[in-house]
Amino acid sequence: MIVVLKQNPDPQQLNTLIDWLKEKHVEVHTSTGALHTILGLVGDTAGIDEDLISALDIVEDVKRVQEPYKNANRKFHPENTIIPVGNTQIGGGTLTLMAGPCSVESEEQIVSIAKSVKASGATILRGGAFKPRTSPYSFQGMGADGLELLKIARQETGLPIVTEIMDPEQLPLFKDVDIIQVGARNMQNFNLLKLLGKQEKPVMIKRGLSATYEEWLMSAEYVMAGGNHNVILCERGVRTFETYTRNMLDLGAVPVLRKLTHLPIIIDPSHAAGKAWLVPQLSVVAVAAGCDGMIIEVHNDPEHAACDGPQSIRPETFDAVAKKLHGLHQYLAENP
Amino acid sequence: MIVVLKQNPDPQQLNTLIDWLKEKHVEVHTSTGALHTILGLVGDTAGIDEDLISALDIVEDVKRVQEPYKNANRKFHPENTIIPVGNTQIGGGTLTLMAGPCSVESEEQIVSIAKSVKASGATILRGGAFKPRTSPYSFQGMGADGLELLKIARQETGLPIVTEIMDPEQLPLFKDVDIIQVGARNMQNFNLLKLLGKQEKPVMIKRGLSATYEEWLMSAEYVMAGGNHNVILCERGVRTFETYTRNMLDLGAVPVLRKLTHLPIIIDPSHAAGKAWLVPQLSVVAVAAGCDGMIIEVHNDPEHAACDGPQSIRPETFDAVAKKLHGLHQYLAENP
Amino acid sequence: MIVVLKQNPDPQQLNTLIDWLKEKHVEVHTSTGALHTILGLVGDTAGIDEDLISALDIVEDVKRVQEPYKNANRKFHPENTIIPVGNTQIGGGTLTLMAGPCSVESEEQIVSIAKSVKASGATILRGGAFKPRTSPYSFQGMGADGLELLKIARQETGLPIVTEIMDPEQLPLFKDVDIIQVGARNMQNFNLLKLLGKQEKPVMIKRGLSATYEEWLMSAEYVMAGGNHNVILCERGVRTFETYTRNMLDLGAVPVLRKLTHLPIIIDPSHAAGKAWLVPQLSVVAVAAGCDGMIIEVHNDPEHAACDGPQSIRPETFDAVAKKLHGLHQYLAENP
Amino acid sequence: MIVVLKQNPDPQQLNTLIDWLKEKHVEVHTSTGALHTILGLVGDTAGIDEDLISALDIVEDVKRVQEPYKNANRKFHPENTIIPVGNTQIGGGTLTLMAGPCSVESEEQIVSIAKSVKASGATILRGGAFKPRTSPYSFQGMGADGLELLKIARQETGLPIVTEIMDPEQLPLFKDVDIIQVGARNMQNFNLLKLLGKQEKPVMIKRGLSATYEEWLMSAEYVMAGGNHNVILCERGVRTFETYTRNMLDLGAVPVLRKLTHLPIIIDPSHAAGKAWLVPQLSVVAVAAGCDGMIIEVHNDPEHAACDGPQSIRPETFDAVAKKLHGLHQYLAENP
Repeated sequence: MIVVLKQNPDPQQLNTLIDWLKEKHVEVHTSTGALHTILGLVGDTAGIDEDLISALDIVEDVKRVQEPYKNANRKFHPENTIIPVGNTQIGGGTLTLMAGPCSVESEEQIVSIAKSVKASGATILRGGAFKPRTSPYSFQGMGADGLELLKIARQETGLPIVTEIMDPEQLPLFKDVDIIQVGARNMQNFNLLKLLGKQEKPVMIKRGLSATYEEWLMSAEYVMAGGNHNVILCERGVRTFETYTRNMLDLGAVPVLRKLTHLPIIIDPSHAAGKAWLVPQLSVVAVAAGCDGMIIEVHNDPEHAACDGPQSIRPETFDAVAKKLHGLHQYLAENP
Repeated sequence: MIVVLKQNPDPQQLNTLIDWLKEKHVEVHTSTGALHTILGLVGDTAGIDEDLISALDIVEDVKRVQEPYKNANRKFHPENTIIPVGNTQIGGGTLTLMAGPCSVESEEQIVSIAKSVKASGATILRGGAFKPRTSPYSFQGMGADGLELLKIARQETGLPIVTEIMDPEQLPLFKDVDIIQVGARNMQNFNLLKLLGKQEKPVMIKRGLSATYEEWLMSAEYVMAGGNHNVILCERGVRTFETYTRNMLDLGAVPVLRKLTHLPIIIDPSHAAGKAWLVPQLSVVAVAAGCDGMIIEVHNDPEHAACDGPQSIRPETFDAVAKKLHGLHQYLAENP
Repeated sequence: MIVVLKQNPDPQQLNTLIDWLKEKHVEVHTSTGALHTILGLVGDTAGIDEDLISALDIVEDVKRVQEPYKNANRKFHPENTIIPVGNTQIGGGTLTLMAGPCSVESEEQIVSIAKSVKASGATILRGGAFKPRTSPYSFQGMGADGLELLKIARQETGLPIVTEIMDPEQLPLFKDVDIIQVGARNMQNFNLLKLLGKQEKPVMIKRGLSATYEEWLMSAEYVMAGGNHNVILCERGVRTFETYTRNMLDLGAVPVLRKLTHLPIIIDPSHAAGKAWLVPQLSVVAVAAGCDGMIIEVHNDPEHAACDGPQSIRPETFDAVAKKLHGLHQYLAENP
Repeated sequence: MIVVLKQNPDPQQLNTLIDWLKEKHVEVHTSTGALHTILGLVGDTAGIDEDLISALDIVEDVKRVQEPYKNANRKFHPENTIIPVGNTQIGGGTLTLMAGPCSVESEEQIVSIAKSVKASGATILRGGAFKPRTSPYSFQGMGADGLELLKIARQETGLPIVTEIMDPEQLPLFKDVDIIQVGARNMQNFNLLKLLGKQEKPVMIKRGLSATYEEWLMSAEYVMAGGNHNVILCERGVRTFETYTRNMLDLGAVPVLRKLTHLPIIIDPSHAAGKAWLVPQLSVVAVAAGCDGMIIEVHNDPEHAACDGPQSIRPETFDAVAKKLHGLHQYLAENP
């Protein structure tokens, strides 16, 4: 951590600061220049509150050198995390395809889509039971009933299920879910994250609409600090000035996160695009980016989907895409 | 609502769509051009799901003409909403100053600041008990104990209190709070919003980091759809490419919201700036923008504040600022 | 084009508007609803100035249905544009690799890099002679001398050259350049674009830092409207709230532009990333996105490059990357 | 400047770097920690190229402590710059109102608007002769003829004129203009800026659509480095995710720039809003923000303006607004 002091800092305040830092077992190196004096803080600065130092009268700026996350940091955990889920795993060279409808709508619908995506090579079934919708007048999902239907589909197909939690109060209902998804709008719902850190199910955290990599990794850190290290990161596009697509898919996030963290990375091309015709191409791109898998919306009747129909592809499209993705994944593994 | 069809739409699908719309009591006007056919939907289209129509094979684009919010919409409620709180009110020409520390830290701290800001003209006391923090390793607030200390400060000063809820489970603790604040990161925590719609306390909704006006008003609509019309909007800066200030305060939001909605508008210059020295000037600007009040962080010892010290002003600064703001507010009322 | 009228529009003003539109050979279809009246304009609306209509007292909003660009629009030119350059071409299934240093620094440097990238499979040589730099105190390029050195490198290797123009006055110097590049900061330098439309050299237009697809295509339209249809689009990352990388590479732009336009699309992973270690992976992703080629900074001594060293890869890295890119391109062509 | 080294830097490379820095008369202070070694560079680092150091293999990150601009920096020029223009001045406590049409359309139009805005208290006449338009099919301004009409209006009213240059080649035509405006899209047209630095007319630089404060001040620095210190900054809104207004007016820019620079600051509420009804309120806000003046579009017939009609206010509105602005400016001067 680097502390840039204002010109002519009060010497007594400066001494107080230096003494306080030394108490925290941080070494302080002082560089005095004509315009600025700089303090270089060396040691474990994760416990030093940047805001507290910034507030001091004598301080102009504080710059962090070390990342503020530890459990999620590749520097401290060089090996990639692999998360076993049912008979499959996420990470470790596997290309995981999570597929299914935006919303669970009926037993027939979810079972039939589950069978279809399994036949096409999906290894995890997605489906929304609790749906975050911008409008209170839109369909809000089937709730607990939807979770039951997902479990039936799992029983019929053997596919583990991933579905979104919206609220700490819903946690008991998720006991039998395989992966608990935290939506983009809840990425900084810190109470929810803490609670998910105290249970054992894998947690997939979607990136917030305008979250930086660091904020996203800090949300993973919330879960991991509680003891649950089974965290998956899911890039789903960020908000920019461009409105042609719903969001801008940040595929550079994959190599950046690979450097910063050991956690597996999933891409959601469906929500990023908001347009079904873009999903196949974006999926190909995601494989090339080196992600550990994708979560793709598939609906057997997108024109009558209860929500997000415009971004759902049909099972026959998914079938073709899945083949292409697995082929490309294998090609890239063999031609590194 | 306007539906732009693709070139050469299938006539049977088009008829199905038109019949379906007519069942929803929406009139359909067709304009056929060389490149595009346009359907003009006339009537109450709030119940028509834009996404469903977008998903149709024959549809190129859907454009909404009418705002999707009703309760929050000035077109349907031309009069400004005025919200009584304790002995004061928000809206209706009053300039409400909410002031207090970022976090409640001790009885002595909160009571002393409360007395001080009251003497300077604040009419509502702010103070955080539950604190959303980016890092799990930062101070998370005093929690329920902090709420108790706020009530003591209210008893000592008569100032109503506003404080942030982070979670539906905390609601019972907020029974005795005067205004319940929903933070920027929770603006689209829809379960929380629904719950706050079913109780009677005024709710102040901060704008999300990258929320559009429409999304923000839809969050207000969630609370209002539940029956609670005492909703206050709080602009606290949005996220952009500029990192000199923590966020960019969108002061144009005030006249825009005045046109779109009848709800009162509060400005938070402290969180927008992230720098105490900017707060006085931004506050003056906020009064000129025509807001109904401000929420300002005041700390008697910002250098040792448990959080967000860098943006807290001292009581003596607040005193000077409050005088200036009230003077300006009166000047503008007299010189419309 | 759709015109949404305010409630209760003045009938005389409305008639004036409708008559004016009919004079422009546009059909007007009126849909009258309880809250809004909508005019659907059908016909060739490219000549109708949206701003003029928006300014009318009776108009609430104007929404364009048809794209405002014609020459660049795939709807009017369904076939992909292929641009011949020297012995090679851009578009039409070729993967073009443009490579070379950020700045031309000496004859020895540019010739040696040119030979090296040619041996690795590059078909076009890049190199900056006029350099746009944020600071007036940074190296501004070798100017006309740099152009001469580029020509020597072309003579030595046979590689066509692409280099950036900054100013209409420089155009005479570019007579002998193969592709003229317009930088991101000049994407809306309309006088420059007009001038480039009146000459015949291919023009590569980089996307502005926060340019929408439509604005970018309108800049292409400026060149094409002048008669020069040899326009190449170059995505180089856009500005967002994330500062870890210099810009955010928008790879979804490739399939979106493929739909909207027939012009070839080049990706610049070097400027997007700002970090050399990201370039190889982003290049792989760009091929998967379906672009027509890439422009990559290669420097034999990035640590002593006169500018943008941090994002330049070494010739040996480029060699490995180019092999990988060509392999992947072939794999994808064979497995569509 | 602070250089953060990678773990275990090669000692020889480190020595080479330190020797090179010392040659540049920069002191180097080394702080060695368990994870990182930090070099604190002390002295005049403006001449040190950040990019060159970043490119070194042993360097992880470089952080600048000192601002990269000197002439524009308040630290080196504490006194506010005051720029005399005709009989008036910009800065120094004056509230300058620049007003006039978006485009000059005819002698009658410009002279009549000039007389009207002068009567209302404007001290400078604005009017576009060369118009940057997104579409090649939109009206591009009257060009040199427009400049002549502006001069006639100046002769008739005595108002100095401000108008936009788009291109270095146009400079000879601007010899008799009072203030040369550089548009947002040209903020980083560095050749134009250099040229404007070598002449004496005041230059008003509009902020780029997504320019940071630092980039904007570096553009001012380009002009000042050439010898012309008469630079005015003009905030005109920035691009964000919100599309309700054309741009988001960043009023916090005024107090921030006051701290960073001594140059005068003008606000353009018309282009920021893109809607005439917002202009009066945004103007009031701009005065409260402490700006040195405003540039406002006024048209006697906005519904038939050749461009940007939707954001032009009528002369009678300007008259009322100007009175309000001057009243508020005086009130704030008397009640600091």
